[in-house]
Amino acid sequence: MLTSINTHAYFMREALREAQKAFDADEVPVGAVIVCDEKVIARAHNYTERLTDPTAHAEMQVITAATNYLGAKYLSQCTLYVTLEPCMMCTGAIFWSQLAAIVYGAPDPKRGFLSRQNILLPKTIITGNILADDCSQLLTTFFKNKR
Amino acid sequence: MLTSINTHAYFMREALREAQKAFDADEVPVGAVIVCDEKVIARAHNYTERLTDPTAHAEMQVITAATNYLGAKYLSQCTLYVTLEPCMMCTGAIFWSQLAAIVYGAPDPKRGFLSRQNILLPKTIITGNILADDCSQLLTTFFKNKR
Repeated sequence: MLTSINTHAYFMREALREAQKAFDADEVPVGAVIVCDEKVIARAHNYTERLTDPTAHAEMQVITAATNYLGAKYLSQCTLYVTLEPCMMCTGAIFWSQLAAIVYGAPDPKRGFLSRQNILLPKTIITGNILADDCSQLLTTFFKNKR
Repeated sequence: MLTSINTHAYFMREALREAQKAFDADEVPVGAVIVCDEKVIARAHNYTERLTDPTAHAEMQVITAATNYLGAKYLSQCTLYVTLEPCMMCTGAIFWSQLAAIVYGAPDPKRGFLSRQNILLPKTIITGNILADDCSQLLTTFFKNKR
């Protein structure tokens, strides 16, 4: 059986695949998956440029996709894996969807919720810095290429 | 020419029309419009039940609709009118879309952003309590009927 750390790394690699797709599409490379019963039920990446919609973050897309998949408004049996610490908008969405747990890759001291206000439900489990270097490297390369 | 207060009341009535549509559809009655050059360019209401999506708040829907309409990612020339003080998720979306101003109807001391953290851009103009009684009455009636 996979240990928790290995499980986290396994699903974060899935989120990283999504982030790579964003990178290839010239979108800020953030990816996310939602896992239920150790199975990926939804995957998405940042779509803000293609949709011309500043709210189309990976987390917003994947939460909508997961609720569609389950036909349920709440994701209280699910875990969100996302390559970057969520912003306040996405943290609000995580709150409303009642996700059981979130696991993020790279920290985001500028826009991430932890340096602002943790508005999640007290029972929501937060795990950070899973494959943080890989997640962060993709973002660094993206922004370096933009200069 | 309309005074500012009359303008606010005029467009809040448009947002209230949307809230009434939500009420009639058995959705939590919150409505919103986005105004650009004194013209409504997008209107929406809460769709969380019909879409089975806890992120489908009126503000999220109307921001996406307005960016679609303008074909632009930023709404820096626009004002959002919404019948209820926005939650943290929607406030994050308002931040990312760079709305010039927000005008809300009823205050929301429980979930509203003002009692938590104002994460908006410093230049964003915030006006509250426009037709607050009408906006709040619709919500009170909705929740009373649910009991």
